[in-house]
Amino acid sequence: MLTVGIAVMSLDGCLTRHGEEGAGFASREDQHFFAETLGTFDCMVMGGAGYRASRARARVAPAPFRVVLTREPEAYTAEAQAGVLEFRSDEPAETIRDLARRGFARCALVGGARLLTASVKAGLLDELWLTVEPVAFGSGLRLFEGRVEIPFELVGVESLGRHTLLIRYRTA
Amino acid sequence: MLTVGIAVMSLDGCLTRHGEEGAGFASREDQHFFAETLGTFDCMVMGGAGYRASRARARVAPAPFRVVLTREPEAYTAEAQAGVLEFRSDEPAETIRDLARRGFARCALVGGARLLTASVKAGLLDELWLTVEPVAFGSGLRLFEGRVEIPFELVGVESLGRHTLLIRYRTA
Repeated sequence: MLTVGIAVMSLDGCLTRHGEEGAGFASREDQHFFAETLGTFDCMVMGGAGYRASRARARVAPAPFRVVLTREPEAYTAEAQAGVLEFRSDEPAETIRDLARRGFARCALVGGARLLTASVKAGLLDELWLTVEPVAFGSGLRLFEGRVEIPFELVGVESLGRHTLLIRYRTA
Repeated sequence: MLTVGIAVMSLDGCLTRHGEEGAGFASREDQHFFAETLGTFDCMVMGGAGYRASRARARVAPAPFRVVLTREPEAYTAEAQAGVLEFRSDEPAETIRDLARRGFARCALVGGARLLTASVKAGLLDELWLTVEPVAFGSGLRLFEGRVEIPFELVGVESLGRHTLLIRYRTA
């Protein structure tokens, strides 16, 4: 299974604007790219905060099979739909391995840092696709947690809009 | 006077690898670019930490007229050379305005966050040139201090090496 981390961030590496949940700062171009690219995946994994933000704001997209990692899956019983939207409290790596075992071919990891860090540490992250918006926030959540040193290789860079870049890396 | 912030960072927006001083992680391609591009400026401003790191490590370069901002300029009396290397404890914006008054045409700001944040808040930052290295650190100093929201416009992106990008922005 190909596993790809997908994120939008400010040019100074903030996944959120200060303490806000979600990526409300994402440009229309990124939202369009995100919706379109998700359509090329057959499953995706996200954190509870990302799920709550995506219900209300930008980066909502017609989604493939979604797994939401949360400490309280029982809080979402009313929203869960078998085969469409699952809520689990597993470790991220265990969830990704389970999706591979179930036969999924392309898995999008749409944050946050805990999910991406756990997947890269378990050797389960193949690529990282970063949208870079032309704004600096100074403070906000980061892409990875803790003191890590993760080498990547550049796959390519393209323009999503006049001022928005999409940079693709693979783990080295 | 054209004022350009120049920095090298990890793909997740860390200007330092965790708590280390300086940019020892900068690729040979970035070091070459940095040395070459500094030759196109007639003055540069840096912080004390950056100066101490550049004495010993990567990103040392044949420099234009250098101003080092430090709380203790008197600690560097032995190293100061009039017209070559000055140590000052001024506010960053005051230093930049003074360089413009003295007739300098191109000023490079080579970090850190305090200098870049003060210059952008004073409306004195024209461009920002970011080298992005293919590595993630999870923690380290950021480009700007505090909770800011600074819009930029993309000027262009180019490859410095196989996996290293140079992204140029101007303040919007």
